[in-house]
Amino acid sequence: MDIDPATIDPAARYRLLIGGIVPRPIAFVSTISPTGRTNLAPFSFFCGVGSNPMMLAFCPANRPDGGDKDTLRNCLPAAEGGTGVFVVNVASVPYERAVAMAAEPLPYGESEFTLVGLTEAPARAVAAPRVRESPLAFECRTRQVIRTNPGAPGGGNLVLGEVVCVHAGDGVLNDRLHVDADRLAAIGRMGGLSYCRTGDRFEMPMGIRR
Amino acid sequence: MDIDPATIDPAARYRLLIGGIVPRPIAFVSTISPTGRTNLAPFSFFCGVGSNPMMLAFCPANRPDGGDKDTLRNCLPAAEGGTGVFVVNVASVPYERAVAMAAEPLPYGESEFTLVGLTEAPARAVAAPRVRESPLAFECRTRQVIRTNPGAPGGGNLVLGEVVCVHAGDGVLNDRLHVDADRLAAIGRMGGLSYCRTGDRFEMPMGIRR
Repeated sequence: MDIDPATIDPAARYRLLIGGIVPRPIAFVSTISPTGRTNLAPFSFFCGVGSNPMMLAFCPANRPDGGDKDTLRNCLPAAEGGTGVFVVNVASVPYERAVAMAAEPLPYGESEFTLVGLTEAPARAVAAPRVRESPLAFECRTRQVIRTNPGAPGGGNLVLGEVVCVHAGDGVLNDRLHVDADRLAAIGRMGGLSYCRTGDRFEMPMGIRR
Repeated sequence: MDIDPATIDPAARYRLLIGGIVPRPIAFVSTISPTGRTNLAPFSFFCGVGSNPMMLAFCPANRPDGGDKDTLRNCLPAAEGGTGVFVVNVASVPYERAVAMAAEPLPYGESEFTLVGLTEAPARAVAAPRVRESPLAFECRTRQVIRTNPGAPGGGNLVLGEVVCVHAGDGVLNDRLHVDADRLAAIGRMGGLSYCRTGDRFEMPMGIRR
């Protein structure tokens, strides 16, 4: 079965992306507006980009009316009305309900932190707060924003950020900076309203000669 | 514990990225060179970007010597020496060993298809082949390549592609184009040499008012 995306509507294309690109890590992104109001929202179009420099990306789509989501507004450079920074917190089992709750948009300026019962903690290198409950957080400066379809409903935007500080809770990292997957207890996104846990793990060596 | 990435080496930054950004979907990317040689390699710095247009991205890092990996060379636009297309195949349990095997680089021009025991099938809309054994494949045209540190070892590159055809095997999609997660049987990447399966799923409704 071959499907030409031009022949289906964007909602169906979205279902194919979220059903086919799995399991997806969740960037639980905390930001701050130029007037000091904080925001927290999950994004599963999210990936690492490279380690030299240390970069990651996440993709907040345009809102149904074509406008920018609060997270995107806040992490735009100052010259474009934002604060140019954001924090990616890991989405973890102990507050998994809060992650799902924070996906619902609120009026601009209302903070999801209070409403979902999580705590703001000061970040080290950026003005945006991190989530105190998160075992691992990447503090980032926005390096580039790529808009694939400005102003269009569902148009994708890619926010490329440089990691300027990594915060880790007690016992999450060993002395070689390996992450303890059980302590992290990350959840991932699947299709529809579905999530997955990360306890069913196995190892495979890389390469054909081993 | 706060870590300044400038104070650790790129390998340690990489461990933090792959241990902290989990679970990661795997883009099992098949490409073709201008002379018709095919390539297949897995990339877990990979995400959806948007549904209007339908776009995704993956990030092949520079090789240890700073050069381009074969996959990146092949999917560059024709004016830059590539063929401008690629196919993202889902990494699935029945051939999970082949996915790990294909991660080892081969001399340019040698195809991983033969060596890992998978089969090339013609794609519908692009010259690159798809993996016949894959239950789902996204055929893509390269729209943009962002190089974050050209020529540097470990420097990240982001390949932004527009999906021009989606191929699905029998029974993978229902008539509303929902993906059957059990038939897909995707595997994800965790830190180190670790992978995860996606059978441990649960549902949570979005939003705080439900």
